[in-house]
Amino acid sequence: MSHHNNIPFDKLFDPQAIAIVGISKSPYGGAFFLRSLQTVGFPKPIYLVNAKLAGTKISGCEIYPSIQSLPEDPFPDLLIIAVAAEGSPEIIEQAGQKGIPFVHIFSSGFSEVGKEGEILEVEILNRARMHGVRIIGPNCLGAYNPRARTAIGENMSAVPGNVAFIGQSGGLSATIGLNGPSRGYYFSKIISIGNQVDLDVLDFLRYFRDDPETRIISAYIENLKRDGNQFVPLLQSITPNKPVVVWKGGISNAGQVAVKSHTGGLAGNFQLWHAMAQQTGVILVDNFEELSEMNLALSMLPIPQTRGVAILTVGGGLSVQFTDACEITGLTVPPLSAATQDILRRFIPDVNTNIRNPIDLGADGLKADTYGRVIKILADEPQISSIIFIRDPERFNHYARVFQIPSETDFGNIFVESIAQGKPTGKIVAFVPAIMVDGEQTRATVARFVQTLQQKQIMAFDNIAAAAKCIYRLWKYGDYLRRRKVREGQLRPVSDN
Amino acid sequence: MSHHNNIPFDKLFDPQAIAIVGISKSPYGGAFFLRSLQTVGFPKPIYLVNAKLAGTKISGCEIYPSIQSLPEDPFPDLLIIAVAAEGSPEIIEQAGQKGIPFVHIFSSGFSEVGKEGEILEVEILNRARMHGVRIIGPNCLGAYNPRARTAIGENMSAVPGNVAFIGQSGGLSATIGLNGPSRGYYFSKIISIGNQVDLDVLDFLRYFRDDPETRIISAYIENLKRDGNQFVPLLQSITPNKPVVVWKGGISNAGQVAVKSHTGGLAGNFQLWHAMAQQTGVILVDNFEELSEMNLALSMLPIPQTRGVAILTVGGGLSVQFTDACEITGLTVPPLSAATQDILRRFIPDVNTNIRNPIDLGADGLKADTYGRVIKILADEPQISSIIFIRDPERFNHYARVFQIPSETDFGNIFVESIAQGKPTGKIVAFVPAIMVDGEQTRATVARFVQTLQQKQIMAFDNIAAAAKCIYRLWKYGDYLRRRKVREGQLRPVSDN
Repeated sequence: MSHHNNIPFDKLFDPQAIAIVGISKSPYGGAFFLRSLQTVGFPKPIYLVNAKLAGTKISGCEIYPSIQSLPEDPFPDLLIIAVAAEGSPEIIEQAGQKGIPFVHIFSSGFSEVGKEGEILEVEILNRARMHGVRIIGPNCLGAYNPRARTAIGENMSAVPGNVAFIGQSGGLSATIGLNGPSRGYYFSKIISIGNQVDLDVLDFLRYFRDDPETRIISAYIENLKRDGNQFVPLLQSITPNKPVVVWKGGISNAGQVAVKSHTGGLAGNFQLWHAMAQQTGVILVDNFEELSEMNLALSMLPIPQTRGVAILTVGGGLSVQFTDACEITGLTVPPLSAATQDILRRFIPDVNTNIRNPIDLGADGLKADTYGRVIKILADEPQISSIIFIRDPERFNHYARVFQIPSETDFGNIFVESIAQGKPTGKIVAFVPAIMVDGEQTRATVARFVQTLQQKQIMAFDNIAAAAKCIYRLWKYGDYLRRRKVREGQLRPVSDN
Repeated sequence: MSHHNNIPFDKLFDPQAIAIVGISKSPYGGAFFLRSLQTVGFPKPIYLVNAKLAGTKISGCEIYPSIQSLPEDPFPDLLIIAVAAEGSPEIIEQAGQKGIPFVHIFSSGFSEVGKEGEILEVEILNRARMHGVRIIGPNCLGAYNPRARTAIGENMSAVPGNVAFIGQSGGLSATIGLNGPSRGYYFSKIISIGNQVDLDVLDFLRYFRDDPETRIISAYIENLKRDGNQFVPLLQSITPNKPVVVWKGGISNAGQVAVKSHTGGLAGNFQLWHAMAQQTGVILVDNFEELSEMNLALSMLPIPQTRGVAILTVGGGLSVQFTDACEITGLTVPPLSAATQDILRRFIPDVNTNIRNPIDLGADGLKADTYGRVIKILADEPQISSIIFIRDPERFNHYARVFQIPSETDFGNIFVESIAQGKPTGKIVAFVPAIMVDGEQTRATVARFVQTLQQKQIMAFDNIAAAAKCIYRLWKYGDYLRRRKVREGQLRPVSDN
């Protein structure tokens, strides 16, 4: 049903004007979209439609009596419907007569509520087809494009990035739109697709495949609406050039029931999704945090060429714990070469340390620059593609005193600077905090330190399990690309560690 | 070799006086223990031993020329050795002659460094046996008892609790000693056991089994030193009365190598440890965070009688995600009874909500007291043993404005108060934060809110996966106890959901 080449997506993501139906004095419904567009600074006209309030203004925007009466220039390329579900067929009819190419239906009350809603969905689709109108939704938040300053929630970032997100949940789409920039990556576009009565996951996957502003594609998918047989070949046409991250919602039985009530879909079997990932190189993740983390990782980190990880810490127990976590996930913690161990031994004393890998730096590791010195030396270890270092920012104040460095911040800066300078090209360098005294102060201190790292393009994870999982998935994606090249004769087979 | 009945553990955990050998002007070594004891407020004498400094004082503590010359009254029940490994046999010899019952060897440089160290271990053990001296360590931090105000690190809590910890890592033992109180649970005792040349995991398991101050036993174990055949029956004699949490270090191949370098042990196969857990009801955890979390959970939560979880949130996507996470872990999210759904429907509107379970409260859930009202009603659902609720404390300020409540703090207080009042007896009620804008402010706000919950005995987890894992493990422990009672004829078999 979808004809990608014929869909003028530019008008959806960069409309000349936007019209909103369903606005009143209430702060909800249409007013939510008005506020969202105004807080992000949408520079083009926003037309409001309300017969009773026609001729007045809300928040500086003109109210028109009908869709028919909306201006021709600039033309409303996008109409947002925020009225009760029953009213939407008539509005789509009018939008069609007006020639509006895209209608985004915010309203819920369609297939997710049962039979009546399903009938309504058929009706809006018929009307839309008749006039060539394309529908986003219903039951969704629509399109976010920081370049055009459109938004799906209040206070969204106007900073453009290169990560796209397709979300079958409005709440999660808006949340990731805020979460990404707060973690250090930005979006090319986000599309909240809801019940997918017309435009669906596949349409937007095709669009983002060809969108020059998108380098990474991520999605929260509860179900495929149609064209399931096109899913695998479509993804295979994307992953060699752009990584695709998919979080599949509704993988459990009860989760599938929850999907039915959420977006009216039938969530497919998890085994099938895993098989799909194997065939396509899609990076499957398990939840919101992992999806956002993977977007950040793909933005910030190289794809590891081997599974080998070096672990840098102070303390034997931590060494054992972190090694276990990496190996259980599928990564390896191989011993360093004798040559590298010799170099490390020159400045790491012999007592209560381990330089084999995991590297336990002992008391010497408490200094501000030891980690950076070690990381630099690891450049020459070909079997090591990733370096995970563990520190305790809550104690930086203490170390600053011990090593006579002015302040906690200075200590942190020296620490981060020496790591940034030592960071070997093409290798992952990632941080995991060690938390002792938990609570507001420690969490704030760690978050501040993570911010400092972020500014130097060093990624931070909440815990070792998350770091290991993410790095393993990156490796697996690289491995998929390698195997595929071998299969396609572009690469000679090599044994991978 | 160990004769529990003959070991006067009270002298180890509540010594009349402590002597430290290996103190100098340096802030490390013996001085670390002196500082630790003084910051926790150890009220009894601390004797220092140093021939060169004899007659002077350090931090108010008398320095004696030799062990022989130490006072008889109060008698040093515990001697801490912080000199180079080679010096320890002679010191143990002297301690033996003096009649000191416990020697804690802090020094490293024993079996964890190879052959020479192994020989040294045999030597100290022989000397100790000859005189009836019992050794803790070497290569460890010794004993912490908040009641007696002994410590294994600086700034440890003097608040006594009922959680015991046995740690085959000094660093992790000291860290959990700080982490526990910061999360809201306290220790009866902690023992850092190091290389276990004499007293080992089994000795302390036996001790804590019979210790009236201990209600929960936790341990970080890298390897069993001896008497492996006694391990399972010993644990079986403990778990009916006290839960035992074990985090096994060195479960991967590389982790086992790291163990060898850490405490000189040979870490056993993970399959064996899982089989052990099946037979004993021991709660196995995977890392430090999980261990500390489990200690808190066992302190704060009832053991769930069924696997059924109710999920309370705002947002369809979150509902699906949290349901998946619970079900994948082995918990269930069963539909609520028609009667309960009817009651909920009286105050939860019909639009964009779900009251079946997962419970999606929609816009109504944004109010301060809706969660509390729902939780109260769930008391009557026998298949629900646990209630997990998700909120976004970073937005409490916003909601306070919308619902005209004075401040974020007031909003949070009303929210928590209504949950505390609604909390059904015998059911788990636990919080998981939803984080949108990540960063210092949000993390601090969430931590502050977690603190408020903690004061009302409501547990918080960092994320849903952690919550689900922890609750599932609690259920499994309860299930072990039930099955065991059935087997022993104390309970008639019932089918569990």
